[in-house]
Formats: sequence, structure tokens, C-alpha cells
Amino acid sequence: MEIVNYRPIGIIHSPFKEHVGIPRQAVGASEIKGNIEIFEEFGEGLLDLEGFSHIIVIFYLHKVTNPSLKAWPPWDDKEHGVFATRSPHRPNPIGLSVVRLDSRDKNILHISGIDMMDGTPVLDIKPYIPDLNPNKDIRIGWLTGKIEGMNKSKSGDR
Amino acid sequence: MEIVNYRPIGIIHSPFKEHVGIPRQAVGASEIKGNIEIFEEFGEGLLDLEGFSHIIVIFYLHKVTNPSLKAWPPWDDKEHGVFATRSPHRPNPIGLSVVRLDSRDKNILHISGIDMMDGTPVLDIKPYIPDLNPNKDIRIGWLTGKIEGMNKSKSGDR
Repeated sequence: MEIVNYRPIGIIHSPFKEHVGIPRQAVGASEIKGNIEIFEEFGEGLLDLEGFSHIIVIFYLHKVTNPSLKAWPPWDDKEHGVFATRSPHRPNPIGLSVVRLDSRDKNILHISGIDMMDGTPVLDIKPYIPDLNPNKDIRIGWLTGKIEGMNKSKSGDR
Repeated sequence: MEIVNYRPIGIIHSPFKEHVGIPRQAVGASEIKGNIEIFEEFGEGLLDLEGFSHIIVIFYLHKVTNPSLKAWPPWDDKEHGVFATRSPHRPNPIGLSVVRLDSRDKNILHISGIDMMDGTPVLDIKPYIPDLNPNKDIRIGWLTGKIEGMNKSKSGDR
């Protein structure tokens, strides 16, 4: 099957200059602020984004060098298939975070809830629309009862 | 900035053989069933995924040929920046849907709520975890009061 090519539309400026210490999920980083610089040639595509309180950021996990089909979260006692986890060490290193959009200044998006490393390339931005989420009969498998551990965990805990 | 290369990990088998008539959002397609064939070499990464009722599918919008920085949803009366919409005609054609995982049979994922075209290449699968979603002070900008129109809309309406 053909290789898919994407060109970054922007870059994340974050207080996290290295891997260790980054919250493992945006929800564990709600106070951490930074910004997304969308390259000027794409700036026009941001019109009206500021009306949304939250945005979905899709990004390239550019520092991941060791993909694996198994992942062992530090707050759990066993391995799982990588697609059943949010581990960054995936066959295609694609990151997904929902962050708060505090304000937009032209092509700069000021955000809260950062769990990305400084310099992370951004591939896409989408508005966060709660009505698109499923809201009944949700099951979360092996994560049942372990959400708190996940939210408190930081990279480098193990 | 460097080009990002991803290799598809699977393919979507869907009743939609062409663009016209596809629900514009998965939430408008809850009864529509299909499956995701994960290529065998990645099958081991699916271990324990079946414990989750819903999964996030990230896919390549392989039929999109006319990206634009503006989008005009058919149920709205004006244009918006493409990053403030869910239009597929984005600079990087990356699709994101949350679908119901009915069952897993080895490397085949049987799903409901399909809004993707048959043959769509899959880039990543992540478990859907409601606790990672923001749940207060949500604003949805220009979409306020227009969700129903969005959910009922199908591709080709205009």
C-alpha cells in the first residue's frame, strides 16, 4: 500500500524541552501553557477557530525511535497491544491531544493542557465537538479502575 | 520542515463505494457496519483492544484531491477556516472517527458507525477513553445551534 506523506502545518512551543517529565495525557497537564505556531501560509485556515474552547491537535511524535507492537504502561501490571494503549511507541507515531484554546493571535494559538514536547510538528487542527463523541455503553477494557494512575503518570516514571 | 511518512497499518471495508451519500460524521452513521482489516504484521498490536467499546480511527482521506484553507459546510450560511471545520479538504488529509468496536476476530475489527469510504487506508487505532475529554466550559463557536444539521448531512448534499 502506498506511503502517505504529510507536510507539517506548524510547530508546538512547549515548556517541555525533553522527553522526561511530560504528562502522559493532556488531561494531566491542564495548567501547562504553550502555543502552536501555524505557519503563515496556512494562517487563513484558522478563521473562526477562536470560537471553540477546545481543539484537537494531531501531531507527529518526532522523537519516537523505537516503535513496538506491545506496550507496558507503568501504572499497570501487564503488557497490552500498542493499539489498545496511548503509548507513543506506535508503528505510525501520530499523537492526538485535546487542549484548551485560550486565544488566537493571528497564526499563533495560545493553549493550555500541553502534553507535547517543544518543537513537535503539527499535522492538523480540528475543532473539538462534544456531540460527536459516543455517550452510552462505554467500556474501557484493561483501563477500568486505572484512569487515575494514567492521569497522574509522567513520562520517565519507569 | 521535514516531510512525515506513514505506512498504512490496515484498510477499511465499508458499504460506501463512492463519495456521495457518506454520512459527514460517524455519529450520523451509528447503524452502518463494516470492518477494519489490520494487516497481519501488525495484528499483535491489537491484543486487549476488544475490551474497549469504542475506538479512535485515524485514517488517510485518500480520495481528497482539492485541499483548501476555507470550507463552507452545506448546513451553514458562510465560509470558515478549514481548521475550524471537519471538512475533509484539508492541507493534510487526515480523518478522525470514533466508532463502536462490535468485536475482534484476530486482525479483523468489526465496527459500527462507519463514515469512511471503502478502501480507506488506516494509519492508527487508539482506544477511546472518555476521561481524556474536556468536560466543562465547552464552547463550539460557529457550530452553536447547528449540530443537528451537521449530523443529518451527507456528502454530496451540495
